[in-house]
Amino acid sequence: MRRRSWWGWGWADAAATDAERAAVLARLPPGWARDPLPVPEIADLDLRPPRIAAPPALAAICSTDPEERAGHTYGKSYRDVVRALAGDLPNPPDLVARPRTEADVVALLDWAASAGVAVIPYGGGSSVVGGVEYRGSGHDAVVCVDLSGLNQVLEVDPVSRAARIQAGALGPVLERQLAGHALTLRHFPQSFEFSTLGGWLATRAGGHYAMRYTHIDDFVESLRVVTPVGISESRRLPASGAGPSPDRMFLGSEGAIGIITEAWLRVQDKPVHKAAAAVRFGTFDRALDGVRAIAQSGLDPANCRLLDAAEAAVNAGVTDGSCLLVLGFESADHPVDSAMDRALRLAAEHGGTYRRVSKQDDPDQPNAVGAWRSAFLRMPYLRDTLARLGVIVETFETACTWDRAPALCAAVRSEVGAAIERLCSGPGIVTCRLTHVYPDGVAPYFTVLANGSRGAEVSLWDEIKATASETLLRLGATITHHHAVGRDHLRWYERQRPDPFGTALRAVKKSLDPTGILNPGVLFD
Amino acid sequence: MRRRSWWGWGWADAAATDAERAAVLARLPPGWARDPLPVPEIADLDLRPPRIAAPPALAAICSTDPEERAGHTYGKSYRDVVRALAGDLPNPPDLVARPRTEADVVALLDWAASAGVAVIPYGGGSSVVGGVEYRGSGHDAVVCVDLSGLNQVLEVDPVSRAARIQAGALGPVLERQLAGHALTLRHFPQSFEFSTLGGWLATRAGGHYAMRYTHIDDFVESLRVVTPVGISESRRLPASGAGPSPDRMFLGSEGAIGIITEAWLRVQDKPVHKAAAAVRFGTFDRALDGVRAIAQSGLDPANCRLLDAAEAAVNAGVTDGSCLLVLGFESADHPVDSAMDRALRLAAEHGGTYRRVSKQDDPDQPNAVGAWRSAFLRMPYLRDTLARLGVIVETFETACTWDRAPALCAAVRSEVGAAIERLCSGPGIVTCRLTHVYPDGVAPYFTVLANGSRGAEVSLWDEIKATASETLLRLGATITHHHAVGRDHLRWYERQRPDPFGTALRAVKKSLDPTGILNPGVLFD
Repeated sequence: MRRRSWWGWGWADAAATDAERAAVLARLPPGWARDPLPVPEIADLDLRPPRIAAPPALAAICSTDPEERAGHTYGKSYRDVVRALAGDLPNPPDLVARPRTEADVVALLDWAASAGVAVIPYGGGSSVVGGVEYRGSGHDAVVCVDLSGLNQVLEVDPVSRAARIQAGALGPVLERQLAGHALTLRHFPQSFEFSTLGGWLATRAGGHYAMRYTHIDDFVESLRVVTPVGISESRRLPASGAGPSPDRMFLGSEGAIGIITEAWLRVQDKPVHKAAAAVRFGTFDRALDGVRAIAQSGLDPANCRLLDAAEAAVNAGVTDGSCLLVLGFESADHPVDSAMDRALRLAAEHGGTYRRVSKQDDPDQPNAVGAWRSAFLRMPYLRDTLARLGVIVETFETACTWDRAPALCAAVRSEVGAAIERLCSGPGIVTCRLTHVYPDGVAPYFTVLANGSRGAEVSLWDEIKATASETLLRLGATITHHHAVGRDHLRWYERQRPDPFGTALRAVKKSLDPTGILNPGVLFD
Repeated sequence: MRRRSWWGWGWADAAATDAERAAVLARLPPGWARDPLPVPEIADLDLRPPRIAAPPALAAICSTDPEERAGHTYGKSYRDVVRALAGDLPNPPDLVARPRTEADVVALLDWAASAGVAVIPYGGGSSVVGGVEYRGSGHDAVVCVDLSGLNQVLEVDPVSRAARIQAGALGPVLERQLAGHALTLRHFPQSFEFSTLGGWLATRAGGHYAMRYTHIDDFVESLRVVTPVGISESRRLPASGAGPSPDRMFLGSEGAIGIITEAWLRVQDKPVHKAAAAVRFGTFDRALDGVRAIAQSGLDPANCRLLDAAEAAVNAGVTDGSCLLVLGFESADHPVDSAMDRALRLAAEHGGTYRRVSKQDDPDQPNAVGAWRSAFLRMPYLRDTLARLGVIVETFETACTWDRAPALCAAVRSEVGAAIERLCSGPGIVTCRLTHVYPDGVAPYFTVLANGSRGAEVSLWDEIKATASETLLRLGATITHHHAVGRDHLRWYERQRPDPFGTALRAVKKSLDPTGILNPGVLFD
């Protein structure tokens, strides 16, 4: 069986190649890359011994194996990777549990509540916001509950096009099963291979697509959630007006009030009609206008991803200083050419020049859309390589209304840029792309590269990120559009959250998790 | 100023004409219509004297006028109309308050909490589920807070296409203000003229359109809510992944945890491209298949309203026993003819025969689509006329997944039909239309007509409705898709609601409304 990396992204055998590394280093200022940090041996980590033993009834599903514990200590953010590489794992889970059934989850929660053990729900472990890391001190021990064994598509309703799926299924695992019914969930976050349905639901994940069916929230017919006070199961419905939505309370609850074990989800036929195009704009602000026109047209492109000039250059081979809009339409039912024609006309009205990407294009032939797609999937592996070389490299994202977007993007560039210059003795690189668009706003996604300093990477990054977060909050944006709150965003989330809603949410937490065992430290201090 | 009817639907001067009454009576079995009940004079109602006086600071906005109190005692359901006509108003609000500012709302809640006075938030008063009627006994007095004075569009952001609107604005009031900016909210529930933005938000209203932008939930950028523990204001965002949605907790909360005072809403350009068609199907089940194909195509028709044969006959002049699908497409940006072509092809594949309704059609010339639209807006007035004549006439609605839809519609017809036959000494009429469709399901809407019995109308209807509600619950549907829970649906809502979610919601109520003054009796026993 192919092994996951315990310290970094994805598969252990898929790390960036020498050629990939050379290519990315060639684009960085000289002097940023140091000798690569070695990856510690598990045996050298000297993990704190487990402070608790699993009760006999749960012993078969609980592990104290050091690689399991080390691999479940952190998520996969830059600061997680740097700490793992430094062998800095002072707070590993005492046990890693792998429930095989929902009854196992119930038994785990019952035991944990009675023993004062903190429970960290864990799907694919791809959190980049400290969502799966225990940072508290009020519990006698910590058990990480890895749900990836609950990975079956249990039922398919082809008439309503819906499927009952266990929460621990990784993206490819559930898509393979749905493909047997000629259906697809069509939810492809960048973490697709290494994140689970339950994780998507608990963090309100955004998929790859720019508009329409892309947020996991909108796919949910019903949820089944194990809470310490009982199982909550909502009715399968296409829509309901019966009180506040039960599902919307659990969506985004990040494991703090229950563990999602399964869900009925709206699935789709596979798209067969497709059209793609690459549009170039001379300036980012002109591009924003063009993208806004498309987003407000009701055409609902599947892809509408705008790369600023720096991203277009690095990731899509655009050499003329243009911004690049990757535009696409898809349908399982009808041709999409007229929608593409109209969208391109709107882009042209705002100064865009375009090239259609035809199906006949040789996939090996370089084109901006194809180049960007390949780069996209390799990005997390490259990030790990750069992290080993001592480069600070991370992303953050947000959303805001259109009226605020130009000023927000500019302020993030300049304020984060200034912070890097101050902290890292020299300028860094801040690039921006738009990952999702809406009729009323947009989700900008930023990538930061900076010259690191051995041993100080985490504190440097934390300061840079704090600057970014302050800028987002001040300019009316959200602290997160799809990465979740976790522990890293908590300070800003608490300021963003309306006070009475915070009061209500604390009351919910207290009522469903009275002993406070569930993912302590996320959503609440 | 035009007067609202204190006892029935809409404008006092817009009651059904003699001709309308004759037309509808001609279609009912002989013997159902009795002499019309007279409308009581306000002076004859003998309302219980107010049990409390407004404090001096609030006296200017509080009224004890009998017509105000009588008009704010009930919503506008059949059972409300019948009770009002019978002069049966044992529990009128002691005071009707009309706040002029949000500060007035805050002052009202502060006073009510300190004085143990129940607060009934009131928008347009169009509830058909007992949403604005105090039925409790634990409070010293009741104040109805009529928000219709807070009716301004306060701000428009044309770039993001969003508007900040006060919650008391009735549909036409806010649309008139938006029209000045060439924008529209385009939310047209049947109650449009007599319901407010705040009411729509508090009850998760569904608009006229069949798909896509029709639920008020989906228009919300942010909410501002006065709760007894403070004002909750969410950030204006196109989307966010920062924890569970604060707005979704207040949407559907029916005034039980706060009073919505304003909201930022996504607005739209006015549609200029339109296409309409009428499709006939031989049987309801064939029609369901055709509608499902359209709903799952991704074409997103604006209208996709299926009338069963009885509704098509009564309300759209269809005389050949067909079901009628009213199909329409709209766009502000691009022609919709190819979408209509494709939808009609899908309908034809399922046995539908169609006629396009062209713009050149004389609006005075009868056609099925136009006839249905006119009938739709007159329905509530006709209901009141029938109620006065002693006919039982009411509607209820639900939603379910497609796999359950044929059996559900059949079971409602047969079980409600049987209940009427048993209770009303003779068969009644149960008709069905689909008001909203989804890729995974549908919202069926039923109209019931039955022979009444003077003085027993309310108890007869309550028994019929209980039968319907049991059928909905048993067959996996929701107790309400867009009419809300109110007090009439509470028993079934409590069974539908997952227990842990009920526990959490009670905790929310307790945390935001610690003295239990807000709309007691909705959502919770």
